[in-house]
Parts: sequence; C-alpha cells; structure tokens
Amino acid sequence: MISKDTRFCIVGLGLLGGSYAQGLKANGFYVTAIDINEESIDYALNQGWIDEGGVTPTNQLLDVDCIVLGLYPNVVVKWMKQYQDKIKSGCIITDVTGVKRGIVPEIQSILRPDLEFVASHPMAGREVSGVQYSDPNIFKPANFIVTPTDKNTDTAIEFVKDLSKELSFNRTTELSLSQHDEMIAFLSQLTHVIAVSLMNTNDNTHLVDYTGDSFRDLTRIAKINENLWSELFIMNKDYLLKEIDDFLDEMKRFRDTLETEDIEEMKRLFIQSTTRRKLFDK
Amino acid sequence: MISKDTRFCIVGLGLLGGSYAQGLKANGFYVTAIDINEESIDYALNQGWIDEGGVTPTNQLLDVDCIVLGLYPNVVVKWMKQYQDKIKSGCIITDVTGVKRGIVPEIQSILRPDLEFVASHPMAGREVSGVQYSDPNIFKPANFIVTPTDKNTDTAIEFVKDLSKELSFNRTTELSLSQHDEMIAFLSQLTHVIAVSLMNTNDNTHLVDYTGDSFRDLTRIAKINENLWSELFIMNKDYLLKEIDDFLDEMKRFRDTLETEDIEEMKRLFIQSTTRRKLFDK
Repeated sequence: MISKDTRFCIVGLGLLGGSYAQGLKANGFYVTAIDINEESIDYALNQGWIDEGGVTPTNQLLDVDCIVLGLYPNVVVKWMKQYQDKIKSGCIITDVTGVKRGIVPEIQSILRPDLEFVASHPMAGREVSGVQYSDPNIFKPANFIVTPTDKNTDTAIEFVKDLSKELSFNRTTELSLSQHDEMIAFLSQLTHVIAVSLMNTNDNTHLVDYTGDSFRDLTRIAKINENLWSELFIMNKDYLLKEIDDFLDEMKRFRDTLETEDIEEMKRLFIQSTTRRKLFDK
Repeated sequence: MISKDTRFCIVGLGLLGGSYAQGLKANGFYVTAIDINEESIDYALNQGWIDEGGVTPTNQLLDVDCIVLGLYPNVVVKWMKQYQDKIKSGCIITDVTGVKRGIVPEIQSILRPDLEFVASHPMAGREVSGVQYSDPNIFKPANFIVTPTDKNTDTAIEFVKDLSKELSFNRTTELSLSQHDEMIAFLSQLTHVIAVSLMNTNDNTHLVDYTGDSFRDLTRIAKINENLWSELFIMNKDYLLKEIDDFLDEMKRFRDTLETEDIEEMKRLFIQSTTRRKLFDK
C-alpha cells in the first residue's frame, strides 16, 4: 500500500508525467524524474514539481517504490529491457499508455521476477503536449483504468488503484487488455479519426467566420500530436479498422437513406441516435 | 428602419420564434404571435413574451410591420400562399429557415408586389425544442445570415440586419442562397450526420461509464429533432450528399493509410488537421 514514505519515479516528463509528478508532490511524496530532455527536468525542478531529476536512469533516481512510465508506446518496452537491471527489487511499475495489448504481455514476459508491472491508463489529456502544460486537475473528471493480467498480484493491483486515488481520478475500473483496447478504439480513437478526417475533407478555412459551437466541439480533437497518435493507432490497428469500417457502413446507410429520400427511415435513425445519446448526458 | 413603434408578428412559436418574441419584447416592441398550438400561445402570454396571440392568422394579429416566419421548412411556402392576403401592405417578412434555395425563390415568385420577403437564418439553436425552452441569450454568440436576392430592396435588407442587431447577434453577414446552403451543408448538416451515425454505429450504451469529454462533445448534436432535420436534409440533398461523399472519401483515405501502416502519410494528415483546426480556435 502507498504510505507517506512511498517514493516515486516518473520516467518521461511530458504532459501526463508532469501531471503525475505535480499531483504526487502536492500530496507530500518524494518524486524523482527521468527525461531525455534536460529542459523538461530543469523546468520541473524550478517549479518544485520533483525532488530530483536527470537525463540518465541512475540507481539513485530509480531508488523508488513505484515507477510510472510516461513514455511513448514505441519506447516503453525498449526502456524496460534496457534499464530494468537498475530498478530496486520489489518496485511496482505502471504506465500511462493508451493501448495495452501491444506492450503489456511483452513487458511482463521479459520482466525480472522480483519486479511487477501493472498496466494502467489515465483517460485524461489536453490538445497540447509538454511538461509546461501539465496540470493534475485534468485527472479530477477523468477515468483511470487498470488492466491487470494473470501475472499480477492483488497487492500490486491495489497499489496502482491507490495511486489513482492519490491523483484524485473520478473513477477507477478494471478491464482486460482486450476490453480496454476495444473500448478505446471506439470511444477515443474513432472519434479522433472522424475529427481529423472532417478537418481534412475540404480546405474549409474560409468558413471560420460562420462556424458555430457544434463544429468547434466536433473538431476540437483534430488538434493532435502526430507522433503519439500514429503509434497508438498502429498498435491498435485491428480494433480501430473494425470501428472505422462499422462507422463508414453506418454513414453510408444514412447517405443512401438521404439519396432515396426515405424519410421514415431517416427519422428512425434520428430517434435512435437521440435516445442513445441521452444516456450519455452527465 | 426599425423604430420604437415597429410592430412584429412571430408565426410559429417554437424555440426560435419564442426567442425572437422574448428578445423583441424585452426591447419594448409590440409583438404578436400565431401558432397552431394554443398551449404555446398561452404559455408565451403568461410569461409576458407576447402582447397578443392566437391559433388563427387574423387581420389583427397580422397588423404589423414585420413578420418572422418561425415555421418548419415544408410549411413556410404553404403558409405564405394561404395567408398573404391578410398581411398589411408594406410589411417586411423574414424567416428562420436553415435552408434557402428550396423556399426563397418560390415565396418571392408568388408574393404580392406590395410585400417583401428577405430571407435570413439565425445560426442558433438548442438540442431541445418548444417555446418553453426559448431564450434570446442563444443569439449572443451566434451568426445571423441574410440571404438577399435581386427581388430585394436595400431598405428591406437593412431592416432585417437591424433586426439582428436588436436581437444582439454576434455577427451579421450576407450570403447568396447557394453560398448559404453549401456552407450549411458542410458546417452544420454534415456534422449532424456524423454525430448521428457515430451514435448509431454500435449499441454503445454499455460504454457510458468510460466516456470522456471528447466523445460527449462530438455526439452532443446526435440529439436531434427528427421532423425538422429530415426536412432540412432533403431540401439540401444535393449539397449534403456531396459533403458526405467527400468526407467518406477522406475517411477511407485515412483508413487505408492505417491499414498499410503508412506512418509518414498519417502524420501528414494529423499535422494538416491540427494546422487547419487552430484557425478555428476562438
């Protein structure tokens, strides 16, 4: 369990890593950080968000009870392979990665037996990146998802759930790796594909002055970190392609309903979407 | 020009008509209203939003300088044909309809020569309908579009622009009928088709608990008035089908980029959408 003496190391001090550091430091924990970008470390030190930090994973920075991997999906496994020898025995490691099947089994299969990796996904973010934009308040309305496997112990799972409570997440739930990736494909990745494709449909910039809130709300997430999201999409390609195809089929159905002026079917589709969407009102 | 003695009649006392009535009454104008639903009239009378009202278009209710047609698209032309004989000579008539090519030429071709119809579109709304939800504050952030034709006089066009100022619209602009309908097909109608189709793609209601703001923002407009929007879509079918097809092509392009794992192209698409979307930030 987390106690006041629990020490944390944040590996990868970006928007999420910085928000973890701030949230934990505000609660009185000792927090170290590692990032390849020295400016990010200096910034966090100057802000008082971390106690110690550096660009190299040293034994001192890794002398902690819990490591949070705030790295890009393609880097997480490599980092663990390269540096796990420096980690203190008994350390619980978690992550923030937005896809799970592509990284969790691989890390767990190579992990030292005296370490434990419990994957988790804080469903929070902003349309900007970098430690300077980090803010633990983004966790307050957000979901925290733990994705345990049969390699995990109850103790470590509870530890990671405790971490989500320290960070004031709104809700903490468990999903399997596949359940997580399928849910993310629909709720998060498909919506980003839609927003990006809508912005790319036309050179619509001359319409700025006529734009209302509906269009702005729908396309807000078309501002997207191209390096992170291309990795997330490719790692979840099977589920995401299925969701895209299902959506395209549904939209083609609507298109044909309009072309044939099948008013009764169009109304049925509107009523169905209205009924379903009402359940999602807060 | 509008003066303190200008009298208005709202025909169709729904969400928009009620908001016009409230806004005009608050500015001290004399406002009458006509609606087939007696409860709507009684409600507005009780609230003090109108001075007089009734279910029948009488000479007394139509003894005004300006009529605002807050009717469904399929009813606007019929109403004008049926009741224009009762309208006072010199009256300026405008509307709130979200499509223009399907109604404006027809009304102008049958209109008495001593009346003038200047079409306009208040780009404001809510996900609910009915006079009880009306609220003139919805106009404050919104665009007001006037769509004059060669049948219109400068005096009447200026009168309708004045009306938008009385109602505190954020911005008033002129577009041709075709420019209006093309713009609306992309910015408003296509976004509604997307939101509706996304909600209809799967029975996704079991995902409610995992939903974040991105999905909620994108699907807010999937709550839709099926009678109004089926009419609007069918009246603008040519432009809307083109926008849907362009969007489907763009999304298929993204899909194929993902399937072939063309990372460089995927990043290019993300960068393009990000750059374009930034121009739409308020």
